[in-house]
Amino acid sequence: MASNEVKLLSSWISPYVLRAKIALNIKRVEFESIPETLFPKSDLLLKSNPVHKKIPVLIHGDRIICESLVIVQYIDEVWASGPGILPSDPYDRAIARFWAAYIDDKWFPNVRALLVIEEDEAKKATLEQITEGLVLLEETFTKCSKGKKFFGGDNIGYLDIALGCFLAWLRVLERITDVILLGETKTPLLFKWALDFSSEPVVQPDMPDIDKLHEYSKGFSQRLKAFDKKKK
Amino acid sequence: MASNEVKLLSSWISPYVLRAKIALNIKRVEFESIPETLFPKSDLLLKSNPVHKKIPVLIHGDRIICESLVIVQYIDEVWASGPGILPSDPYDRAIARFWAAYIDDKWFPNVRALLVIEEDEAKKATLEQITEGLVLLEETFTKCSKGKKFFGGDNIGYLDIALGCFLAWLRVLERITDVILLGETKTPLLFKWALDFSSEPVVQPDMPDIDKLHEYSKGFSQRLKAFDKKKK
Repeated sequence: MASNEVKLLSSWISPYVLRAKIALNIKRVEFESIPETLFPKSDLLLKSNPVHKKIPVLIHGDRIICESLVIVQYIDEVWASGPGILPSDPYDRAIARFWAAYIDDKWFPNVRALLVIEEDEAKKATLEQITEGLVLLEETFTKCSKGKKFFGGDNIGYLDIALGCFLAWLRVLERITDVILLGETKTPLLFKWALDFSSEPVVQPDMPDIDKLHEYSKGFSQRLKAFDKKKK
Repeated sequence: MASNEVKLLSSWISPYVLRAKIALNIKRVEFESIPETLFPKSDLLLKSNPVHKKIPVLIHGDRIICESLVIVQYIDEVWASGPGILPSDPYDRAIARFWAAYIDDKWFPNVRALLVIEEDEAKKATLEQITEGLVLLEETFTKCSKGKKFFGGDNIGYLDIALGCFLAWLRVLERITDVILLGETKTPLLFKWALDFSSEPVVQPDMPDIDKLHEYSKGFSQRLKAFDKKKK
């Protein structure tokens, strides 16, 4: 393999893979997307990410980088061929990292839970927590964007990628639950942001089709339930 | 408050606070440590970290930064008054970030669990997982340190801080369980590293006293159990 060749172990359904793709698009890096089967996991995945066995995996020459937010930061630091992804000010960077961690550790687990929860009461509580999180992120948007289009200002940045990667799945969950999660009433700024984000040239071609993802989610939800049961 | 004054909401028992302290020590930053009571949480804590309500909180002039690894990166980026904490090469940085996230997301939850688990079988399984994690980290040490004293090379770096902050608690858990967790047999390099790390001038004065921490852990374990029960 040529020393600078870039490959990405991918799946069109994975929000985490989408993060890496958007970051590579921002930096105009050409890369080969290697579709990962996931059920079962490929030997290449097991070999390149033995700790988590999860996509995305970025293969850059002989370097292997795992974990989506680590990958996005790596891409930002290695390639200067596009706008910066993390803010340039250390404090703004800290704020972006704080909220990206919040999204992954606190907010998204509720989104995932919606795919497996069956009891109405628990579902209702989870929906409320998702909306509360989005209201918090709406406040964060006001502070970070300073009146501009994105969390990152004029351009898509770290926090835009961290949250925006979940938009297609959010829309699918709205269909499944018949509840508006990211709506104009409670989160008008994020509602507008979601439209802007999704139509950006570095995002739009890689955004999953909602109909196709909705169809896929039916079988996926069963797989997640089986996975969670096995884990217990 | 003068615009560059540095304060840290702290507690001597918190490994996460220790991360921030070590980073500040490395950069030779003078700071005021404000002891946080935790039970109950102070108004200052609730106001400065409303999302997680957790220490450490770094107050730098009018900037408030939360989450220990975010704080360590902020300190590294703001102050050039000491050696770099994150590696200078983007790939080495990615590796350090990957393993720091592993420590927090995969490895430490087992350490914390030991304080609350009561059943022998579950305790045994958890002890094994902790050791397995340390064996993995021993391999990582070989790759990162390249024959030098620390993960970060000649100086203490990001990954040293991320793991080293837990050393005192590990020793306390060894006393409680009568099991060697970080020993010379299975992890000879980390055993040596732990001694080197703990005796560094930027670490040693802030390392909790093991006897005192052991004494504290007795009541703390009951509090954790009560907290977990309430959460359920």
